[in-house]
Amino acid sequence: MKLIPIALFAGVLLAASANAADAPPAGPPPQAWRSVDPANLVLIDTKYGEVAVELAPQFAPRHVARMRALIGAHFYDGQSFYRVVDGFVAQGGVGEDTASTKIRDAKLEKEWPKLKAEFDRPVGNDVAFTPLGNPDSFAPEVGHVNGFPVGRDPADKRMWIIHCPGTFAFARDNDNDSATTEFYIVIGEAPRRLDRNLTAFGRVIEGMQYIQKLERGDPDVDNGVIQDKAKRDPIIRMRLASDVPAKDRPAFQVLRTDSAFFAQVKDKRRHPAPEFYHRPPLANLDVCAVPVMVKRTGK
Amino acid sequence: MKLIPIALFAGVLLAASANAADAPPAGPPPQAWRSVDPANLVLIDTKYGEVAVELAPQFAPRHVARMRALIGAHFYDGQSFYRVVDGFVAQGGVGEDTASTKIRDAKLEKEWPKLKAEFDRPVGNDVAFTPLGNPDSFAPEVGHVNGFPVGRDPADKRMWIIHCPGTFAFARDNDNDSATTEFYIVIGEAPRRLDRNLTAFGRVIEGMQYIQKLERGDPDVDNGVIQDKAKRDPIIRMRLASDVPAKDRPAFQVLRTDSAFFAQVKDKRRHPAPEFYHRPPLANLDVCAVPVMVKRTGK
Repeated sequence: MKLIPIALFAGVLLAASANAADAPPAGPPPQAWRSVDPANLVLIDTKYGEVAVELAPQFAPRHVARMRALIGAHFYDGQSFYRVVDGFVAQGGVGEDTASTKIRDAKLEKEWPKLKAEFDRPVGNDVAFTPLGNPDSFAPEVGHVNGFPVGRDPADKRMWIIHCPGTFAFARDNDNDSATTEFYIVIGEAPRRLDRNLTAFGRVIEGMQYIQKLERGDPDVDNGVIQDKAKRDPIIRMRLASDVPAKDRPAFQVLRTDSAFFAQVKDKRRHPAPEFYHRPPLANLDVCAVPVMVKRTGK
Repeated sequence: MKLIPIALFAGVLLAASANAADAPPAGPPPQAWRSVDPANLVLIDTKYGEVAVELAPQFAPRHVARMRALIGAHFYDGQSFYRVVDGFVAQGGVGEDTASTKIRDAKLEKEWPKLKAEFDRPVGNDVAFTPLGNPDSFAPEVGHVNGFPVGRDPADKRMWIIHCPGTFAFARDNDNDSATTEFYIVIGEAPRRLDRNLTAFGRVIEGMQYIQKLERGDPDVDNGVIQDKAKRDPIIRMRLASDVPAKDRPAFQVLRTDSAFFAQVKDKRRHPAPEFYHRPPLANLDVCAVPVMVKRTGK
């Protein structure tokens, strides 16, 4: 068995060979973990498995409040991932009861008025930004806040969640202030051109493999909307963990990205196992390719 | 319906709104297409659908010859994607008949001797390198050769295929010159640290959505090897298109990345639809996020 090394638990890169004595994965210390607030934990039931998303109210309070309200109203239950473009996004939440798109959109917007955009927010002391430590091709500065990949611009003192695989965001029309109910999840190479052009307000912390299993649309037909409704994979149910009785409640911890342990993880990525990597890679990291460890601590 | 725009056929970014008059996708002219040589076209049957891979003998002739020989010997038929790490790689071709890994590896290496690495090749006039046109964080220069994402170093005059989603490569042990039979396909954000450290010699040109559906392993257990063999998704069959009777043969054309049309595609990506993108993204492109169009022209 030949293994391309992956960064594991310990931030230790396991050696490639099955014969090599792999370093035992030593976990991060307890203080390096942060518990996810159940009010920010969205659980999406798909037929492939449960997907967990952490919301980031500190970046987009209006969009987070809307998502909680939609979930509370059971808006998404029984809908589908109706637009899935391989290598790009999986999208749902259009509402699918009415025949006409125009009537449906008008009705939706009456119940769920268009939201003012929250593409970015001021840099502030309420959130700890940890710089990645190398330049990025798409933003003046990149790093992490509470596990979220974040861009920052020292010129206008704004910061925003970056579109990486797993980023959770609201879709909109041409009008910046037009998000209502539809969300998308990034499923491919980071589409960084979307940064600061849409409101990203969460990220998948578990279950990306289930999102990757979703039936795709044809990107050349109707923007990837799956034409055969029967083929669309259902959103069986969306819940907020805080609405789940405590004894049944899934719970997660996320590695603190302002911890010394996360600094080690990045350092190991920059300088991976020399017994395998005979040519050391350039020490630059892609902010979307640094793993932020997550562990399930309940249910 | 709210749509985040995607770059479509024409290299035209469709506007976001369902109400907007979308520009009709005008296809590339005939001379902008290149037919894939059937001797370089690998067809992988999975239970989700057929995956097409184009091989690049101009980058790694020994590894391509080995792949053709393995396919000719039906080596892969009935094996499985036994190691699948979400966001990283799907791997197969270990041979799964013998109980002991050591015996199996030794037997395999007798039949299929270790290959000398082909991590990179000299820059040369036999291949047309089209620069992407902006800096990259991981290589001195990046661009395309025949649709493949390629890095280039003017200092040592070497070039190599970059690890993007869909890149097809041989796995190895710690020894650089140790690839035998195992291949992997990149399924997540480009793991650029692998560039020039493994032999990449092809890319998926159709069917990535089927690879994305593959059952995953747990990255924290045995490097992502799926422990329950019954859960591993089979490699039903691997064929070379040139071995398929002409009348049944799948055929593809790939957009010439040295064409004026591809220059337009990149330009559109750099300057996407202003009616949607009120904040123009930085004009830098990710070499792994530029779509290289492919069309099926047979079967």
